[in-house]
Amino acid sequence: MDKMQQPIPTHPPTLGQYLFDSLKAEGITEVFGVPGDYNFSLLDTLEQYDGIRFINARNELGAGYATDGYGRLRGLSAFITTFGVGEMSACNPIAGANSEYVPLIHIVGAPKSMDQQAHKLAHHSLLDGDFDVFRQVSTHLCAYTAIVTPENAEQEISAAIRIAKQKRKPVYLMVAMDLVTKPIVQRGIPEVTKVTTYKPALEAAIQHITRLLNGTNNVVLLSDMLSLRYGLRDSVHQLASNFNVPAASLMMGKSSFDEQHPNYIGVYGGSLGSEQVRTIVESADYVIAIGMIWNDTNSAKETAMLHRLRLIDIQPEFVRVGESMYEQVMAADLVAALNTCGWTQSGALPQVSFPYDELSGEPEKPIRAASYYPRFQRMLKDKDIVVVETGTFGYGMSQVRLPAGAEYISQQGWQSIGYATPAAFGACISEPDRRVLLFTGEGSLQVTVQEISTMLDNGCRPILFILNNSGYTIEKYLNIKTSNQQYNEIPNWHYTQLAEAFGGKAFTVEVRTNQELDEAISAAEQAQTSQLCMIEMIVTDSMDAPDYLIRLRKHLEEQERLKE
Amino acid sequence: MDKMQQPIPTHPPTLGQYLFDSLKAEGITEVFGVPGDYNFSLLDTLEQYDGIRFINARNELGAGYATDGYGRLRGLSAFITTFGVGEMSACNPIAGANSEYVPLIHIVGAPKSMDQQAHKLAHHSLLDGDFDVFRQVSTHLCAYTAIVTPENAEQEISAAIRIAKQKRKPVYLMVAMDLVTKPIVQRGIPEVTKVTTYKPALEAAIQHITRLLNGTNNVVLLSDMLSLRYGLRDSVHQLASNFNVPAASLMMGKSSFDEQHPNYIGVYGGSLGSEQVRTIVESADYVIAIGMIWNDTNSAKETAMLHRLRLIDIQPEFVRVGESMYEQVMAADLVAALNTCGWTQSGALPQVSFPYDELSGEPEKPIRAASYYPRFQRMLKDKDIVVVETGTFGYGMSQVRLPAGAEYISQQGWQSIGYATPAAFGACISEPDRRVLLFTGEGSLQVTVQEISTMLDNGCRPILFILNNSGYTIEKYLNIKTSNQQYNEIPNWHYTQLAEAFGGKAFTVEVRTNQELDEAISAAEQAQTSQLCMIEMIVTDSMDAPDYLIRLRKHLEEQERLKE
Repeated sequence: MDKMQQPIPTHPPTLGQYLFDSLKAEGITEVFGVPGDYNFSLLDTLEQYDGIRFINARNELGAGYATDGYGRLRGLSAFITTFGVGEMSACNPIAGANSEYVPLIHIVGAPKSMDQQAHKLAHHSLLDGDFDVFRQVSTHLCAYTAIVTPENAEQEISAAIRIAKQKRKPVYLMVAMDLVTKPIVQRGIPEVTKVTTYKPALEAAIQHITRLLNGTNNVVLLSDMLSLRYGLRDSVHQLASNFNVPAASLMMGKSSFDEQHPNYIGVYGGSLGSEQVRTIVESADYVIAIGMIWNDTNSAKETAMLHRLRLIDIQPEFVRVGESMYEQVMAADLVAALNTCGWTQSGALPQVSFPYDELSGEPEKPIRAASYYPRFQRMLKDKDIVVVETGTFGYGMSQVRLPAGAEYISQQGWQSIGYATPAAFGACISEPDRRVLLFTGEGSLQVTVQEISTMLDNGCRPILFILNNSGYTIEKYLNIKTSNQQYNEIPNWHYTQLAEAFGGKAFTVEVRTNQELDEAISAAEQAQTSQLCMIEMIVTDSMDAPDYLIRLRKHLEEQERLKE
Repeated sequence: MDKMQQPIPTHPPTLGQYLFDSLKAEGITEVFGVPGDYNFSLLDTLEQYDGIRFINARNELGAGYATDGYGRLRGLSAFITTFGVGEMSACNPIAGANSEYVPLIHIVGAPKSMDQQAHKLAHHSLLDGDFDVFRQVSTHLCAYTAIVTPENAEQEISAAIRIAKQKRKPVYLMVAMDLVTKPIVQRGIPEVTKVTTYKPALEAAIQHITRLLNGTNNVVLLSDMLSLRYGLRDSVHQLASNFNVPAASLMMGKSSFDEQHPNYIGVYGGSLGSEQVRTIVESADYVIAIGMIWNDTNSAKETAMLHRLRLIDIQPEFVRVGESMYEQVMAADLVAALNTCGWTQSGALPQVSFPYDELSGEPEKPIRAASYYPRFQRMLKDKDIVVVETGTFGYGMSQVRLPAGAEYISQQGWQSIGYATPAAFGACISEPDRRVLLFTGEGSLQVTVQEISTMLDNGCRPILFILNNSGYTIEKYLNIKTSNQQYNEIPNWHYTQLAEAFGGKAFTVEVRTNQELDEAISAAEQAQTSQLCMIEMIVTDSMDAPDYLIRLRKHLEEQERLKE
């Protein structure tokens, strides 16, 4: 933020201008949101502001998810809601960004400061004169919250941005609407000592790690979500090459390691994922995990087995080598040191195949998981942005091998259905020159369907694959106690008619057979250069699912039997 | 809840059964919600349960608003979400129910108790092992929260229901999924002393009030939202008749006083509403307000003038007569005592006209506020349920005179756009034998449009009036600082095509002229007996608005000028 270190200008900017200057300095060129009367002054300022566009979503759930998708690609993002009604509709995206380490700035336009001080019973409040209650809600979901005034704008805005970036978490800024146009009081931003690596700890860790490595020739890298979030992808690629070791990713870290890298072996998913990957990872003497989160998704419902004493667990600000903890060691420094430590594994890398390498399914046969996932793998192109909804697609797409430079956006920890459609919109806005593909089930699409309209309205041209399997198939798989639940049925929409109802033009097609899917993909690849594409995939067998999910179901059933 | 006072059965019910028994005992026959893996055991129990249906909405925002609409009609309602992702999408409806005094039970299915105790990093969590954080969020928005177990089920469920009903506020119950099917421990529900009227305070208040009344012949009743919520409507009607006084309602209390009652004079809205009503109310010696909330909506942006010393302010559990406060006086007891106090005002009631009594607008002319509100007033029938979105319709419909026995559902304090469509769905489910009419702007409709699909799927047959005025007209009116804001523009949908895209059959029509509207209303009244009806009202002048809103805009401009 060089801007702020320049000499103090004669005319200080307004609070609103200063806020947007600060966002622009971070590379933010679009801010999402939904208008409301308490954020007029913010949006009026933004509408006049040079260098940041306001992107209007259909509701705050969509705006929040879009901001999340944008933030995953840009490293920081922001959205504006209105006091009470707007911000309370954004709790899910904020919590999701917290859960999945996405730094985003949630800016809330609030009632006039005089009305707040008088504890007036304002609309959009709980009618009890309390104007702080929604910020208090946000304290549970954000890494930082602040009420911004002209007097503290420099301090609070810079603190919020710094904390969001350092912790990769959402932060919350509330501004009374009348203060947005007031000039800020310029006092300068206090110097904050950046947390940096404590060298002796780093050296001790490297010594410990190299001692272990020198005694083995069977090491595996495991790349996960925080590696991506903390910008370690390139150095981890280099580490795999330098070490000459196989590299897997975890489910939540998919695309944190380039899947066309020669060392890449696949996604490690315990007994639910690829057997080849499992054997390689679980038979390694040491696993070097970078940015790993050990939740039920990544542990494949605890079927994944990483022995603590054989684990080198590189976290953003510490590393644990077996049971030895080295604190205040930044991951970037540690990986850099490992890259120059000189150790290399001898021998050839394992030869692996990927679950969906082989095309299958007769042309005239109904589409099935076994037939469409290989087709998706084949159609993906370098640098594609692949946005995948939680549910059956989430499990299946995790096993599809991505092309070089692809980004994979999926909420595999928070797993909120409806996330992917607005996230794809956010990706389109972030990267207008890259191809965006959305893979969503129809139940999830229904949650946030209106953001298709926002995509059309903004001239976005993603390809949407909508899996119509007549209900919440994922839920039917996960419920092992009962069957044919009425509550897992949903209305059957004509998805391809949505674009027209939304007043937009799109390429739309329904497919039922493999050949129809092939043709639809070809046609969409042509059409996508000029318009949004929707491919509705209507499956015959509503319980058809990728192997990963079938194994997950079997695992849950076994667990249940063991309890009896 | 007589059921619970019966002798203890040999086989205690499961926690889930007990929960639904408790809801059924309160007259709840439908529970809304969205499935998720942590609430399977709740939904499985409900699917087998006799006497309560589960109603699946498209997302939690819709489910919550539907629950709110249902709760306004039934006096209590409930909905089920899943841990984290589900409940965090419901913060807006919960806060709205809090703001507008709607008692609803929010039931959340949570991860297995063992996993919670082990602080596992589960999906749908913030991945920090904290399973209490979302309940903590709800403490800010609910009147009560509890974690229900078989050991405390009797106590906590009864406490939550009691508090919701007493305070007319939302409450929150979280149940670990594995505990739902466990038998409850039966200890009996502790007796809770009900707060009842303190007789000496009541007598003193009545003495004070009658002393004032005996000195005047110019009294007005003012009925508001809490009168409706606390079930005082009938006794307030009686009071108006016994006292022979004119009765007005406030904006948020519309339909709390029957608008065909001979004593009814209209909605009091300060200088923004009817001049006749204003004159009568503001020139009264005493105003008896029942269940009044003094927020910016009801005070018509503080243009309404109620002099404190001339106000008898009857609140649910106290009354303030001028500056004298009488505590622990239940409104029902006070109104009952006033009904028998013998005072009557002499003379005839004032003759008033209502803003939209006169039909206007040539048949071939474009529809305008001045022409369509009288048509709405004319079409409404006794006992209709009129659901009105915030925005231009919210202001205009408030001035339409309702037929006898009509219910008016509108969120005029919380004012969250998108509320009305799902609320209309909730009303349809609550009262399948009554006609439900929805009046919504198109910007609001886009927020929660998917619940039209849920209505179609459930065979609901409301008449939807969708005002297409090309953007957030209400916001354009409220922003007096700038004009032609880009952010107030929205995509132009083909609203009538939505029903087909949602896979449903509906009567749909677009209207542009008064005659087309007349014909559409006639046709819809026929069609409504068998199907959902959508009337898209396409207006020529996007800034056309009801007089109330035009006066509001003028008032805001004057306020702004005064500041300069």
